[in-house]
Amino acid sequence: MNNIVSERIKNTPPSFIRGILKAAERDDVISFAGGLPNPISFPRQALQESMNRVIAEYGSHVFQYATTAGLLSLREYIADKYRNQYHLEIEPDDIIITTGSQQALDLIGKVLINEGDAVLLEEPGYLGAIQAFSQYQPNFCGVPLLEDGPDISYFEEILKNEKVKFAYLIPNFQNPTGLTYSEEKRAAVLELARKYHCILVEDDPYGELSFTGKVNGYISKDGLEESILLGTFSKIVTPGMRLGFMIIKDEKLRKYVNTAKEAADLHSNIFAQYCIWDYVTHNDIQDHINKIRKLYKEQCETMIQAMETYFPKEVRFTRPKGGMFIWATLPEGQSANELFEKALLKKVAFVPGNPFYTDGREANTMRLNYTNASKDMIEEGIRRIAELFDEINK
Amino acid sequence: MNNIVSERIKNTPPSFIRGILKAAERDDVISFAGGLPNPISFPRQALQESMNRVIAEYGSHVFQYATTAGLLSLREYIADKYRNQYHLEIEPDDIIITTGSQQALDLIGKVLINEGDAVLLEEPGYLGAIQAFSQYQPNFCGVPLLEDGPDISYFEEILKNEKVKFAYLIPNFQNPTGLTYSEEKRAAVLELARKYHCILVEDDPYGELSFTGKVNGYISKDGLEESILLGTFSKIVTPGMRLGFMIIKDEKLRKYVNTAKEAADLHSNIFAQYCIWDYVTHNDIQDHINKIRKLYKEQCETMIQAMETYFPKEVRFTRPKGGMFIWATLPEGQSANELFEKALLKKVAFVPGNPFYTDGREANTMRLNYTNASKDMIEEGIRRIAELFDEINK
Repeated sequence: MNNIVSERIKNTPPSFIRGILKAAERDDVISFAGGLPNPISFPRQALQESMNRVIAEYGSHVFQYATTAGLLSLREYIADKYRNQYHLEIEPDDIIITTGSQQALDLIGKVLINEGDAVLLEEPGYLGAIQAFSQYQPNFCGVPLLEDGPDISYFEEILKNEKVKFAYLIPNFQNPTGLTYSEEKRAAVLELARKYHCILVEDDPYGELSFTGKVNGYISKDGLEESILLGTFSKIVTPGMRLGFMIIKDEKLRKYVNTAKEAADLHSNIFAQYCIWDYVTHNDIQDHINKIRKLYKEQCETMIQAMETYFPKEVRFTRPKGGMFIWATLPEGQSANELFEKALLKKVAFVPGNPFYTDGREANTMRLNYTNASKDMIEEGIRRIAELFDEINK
Repeated sequence: MNNIVSERIKNTPPSFIRGILKAAERDDVISFAGGLPNPISFPRQALQESMNRVIAEYGSHVFQYATTAGLLSLREYIADKYRNQYHLEIEPDDIIITTGSQQALDLIGKVLINEGDAVLLEEPGYLGAIQAFSQYQPNFCGVPLLEDGPDISYFEEILKNEKVKFAYLIPNFQNPTGLTYSEEKRAAVLELARKYHCILVEDDPYGELSFTGKVNGYISKDGLEESILLGTFSKIVTPGMRLGFMIIKDEKLRKYVNTAKEAADLHSNIFAQYCIWDYVTHNDIQDHINKIRKLYKEQCETMIQAMETYFPKEVRFTRPKGGMFIWATLPEGQSANELFEKALLKKVAFVPGNPFYTDGREANTMRLNYTNASKDMIEEGIRRIAELFDEINK
C-alpha cells in the first residue's frame, strides 16, 4: 500500500499522543500524557436536562441534516459572548461551527496551504496543528517561544524572508508550554502581522481556564479582517461532543472554508449543537468555568510543588497561570524519550518534547498534563519520574 | 483572498444542493432537492431512552475524549452485522467510525489521491464524492451508468489506459439515479478490479432501503483485501448525529486513514456513538428499517405515478427498487437548469443534473428526491413541474 498512498499522507506524522493512548490511559498508569479535561468537570446532569429539553422543544430538527455553518442560535450565542467578553465586532454569519478545533486546523491547512508555502508556528508548537498542516506539505517556520511570548526579532526575520501564508499561535496558556504572551508581545505580533499582511490564526482553547480570573482573549482585536480566530467547547463543557468554531470576517475566505467543511462532513452533529446551546443558555456557565479554574489551579500547584520537591534543580519548568500543561526542560543532552520509556515501565506517562517540533529533533523537553489526575496521583507520579533522573544521567 | 487560497480549494465546487438549501427548504417550497430522510422515520423516543441510559451507565466516558477508530462496542456491532447479513469476514479492528460518510470520502481522497491521479466514478455520480475528491485534484474518469450498472467495456477501457487509484461506486439504489447493479455487472466489476488491481470504494448508504426486501450488500464479498466499504447510520437511524463507518481490511492503508482521521477531528462524537450503539442493540432495528422501506416505497410509487400522469411522454425516468432518488432525462437539448429556475419560482425544487457530472456539462437530466414530502405534496410538486415543460419547449 505504501506505493499507492498520497505523498501528503506519507508526510503526515501519526499522533504520538494518540499512539500511546492505549498504554497511557490504562487504569494502573498515572497519565500526564493526554490533554484530557478532568471528567468531574463535565456538567453531566445539566447536559442530560438539555438533551431532553431540546428533543421536547425541537423534535425531529435535532436529528435531521442541517446547514454547514451550524445552528444559528449557537452562532448567535458565540457572537454575543465574543462581543461582550472580548469586545470583538462579530456577527453570527462570521462563525462556522466545526467538529472540534481539530477540524478547524484541517480546514485551514486545506484552504490556505499549497505545497511548499511557508507557515509560521511557535516552537515548541501544538502537535495537532503540526499534524493537520503537515498533510498539505508546507514549509514550517518555527519561532522560539520565550517566557513572555514569541521571539519578536526572529518572528520578523521569518516574515521578511519567507512568503508566510499564516502564523498559527496559541497566545493564552499555550499547548505544550502553558506560557502566555505579554501585552507587549501581543502588540508587537499584531504590528508585524499588519506590516507583512500575514494572516493570524489564533487558537484559544484554554484562555478561559485562567487561574487568576484574567482572560486575555485574542491579539487581533482591531485587526479582524486578516485573522482567523478559533474557539471550542471542549475544555469548558465537553470534548466528547466535538464542537469548536471558527471566526472569519473575510467573506471570501469564509466561503472557501465553508466549501471545505461541506466536503469534510456536511455539517457538525446538530444534536450536539442544540445541546451545547441549550446548556450554555440555561446554566450559569461562568460559575461552571470558575469551578474548573479552581480545580485546575489546585492540580497545577500540586504538580509544581511536587516538581520543586522531587525533581533535580537542573530541571527547569514553566509556571502556568492557566490552562492544562507544564513544560519541563532537562539539562542539555538528556533525552526526554529515554525518560519516557523508563517512566512507562514505572507506570507513569507524559509526552516527550520531540513531537512538538516540526524538525523531529531529539529533545530534552517534556509536556506534563495535570488536569486528569488526583492530587495524590500527581504527587506519586512526579515522585516516580524523579527517581529516574539518576538512571538517565548514567 | 483569491490569490491567497490553495489551488486545491479553487478546484473544489461548492455544493449545489447546500447552496440552494435555504431556498429549497423554505416551508412554502415543495422540495425534491435534498436527500433528507423523512423526519417521521427518526426513532425519537427510543433515541432519547438510549441517551438517558448511556449517561446513567457510562457516566463521564460519554463526554470525554475517545479513541480515533471509534467506540469498540459499536464496531463490534457493525462487524457482527456484516458477518451475519453480508457474510463478510470483518473484525472490529477493520472498522473506523467516521463523522458521516462524507468524512470517509474526504479521508479517501486525502490518503489516496496525488494531483493528477486517475479516479473512476459512475456517470452521473454522487456530487458529495465529486466535491470531496476534487479537493485533491484528480483526473476524473467517468463510466456511464446504464440501467443494470456501469458500461463494462468502458470501465475496462479506463482501467487499461489510465493508472486508476480507485473506483468509487454506489452499487445499490445509486445517488443520483436510484439504479442498482445486476448480479452480472457486480461479477464483471469485481473481475476487472482484480485484473487491474484497482481498489474498489463501495459506498452503500441506501442498500437496506430496499422496497422488495432484497438486500445486495457489497461487490467485494471475496475480494476485501483491495477494497474500502462505506456504511452509515444516517439513512436508517439519524443523519443529524453524523455517524458513518469505513471497513478496510488492509492494515497499512487503515493506519494511514487513521492518521488522516486524527488530523481531521481526533475522533467522531463519542456520545453519539454510545447512543447509536445503545439504540441498535436495544431495539428491533430490522423492524424499524422495514417501516422506512414501506414508507419510501409508497412515496416513490406516488412520485412515479404522478410523473407518468403529468410529465410529457418524452421525459424518461428511472424506476428505483429502493433508496431515495429518481433520475429523469428530458429530451435532448432541453435544459434542466432552465426548468429548475422556473420551478423554483413555482415553489418546487429539485437538483438539475450538471453537478453530478465531473465535466460540469449543461445537462438535460435531473434528480428528484421523494422521501421528504407527503404524498399530496409529491403529486402537487410533480404537477407544477409538468406545467413548465411547455414553457421550456418554446
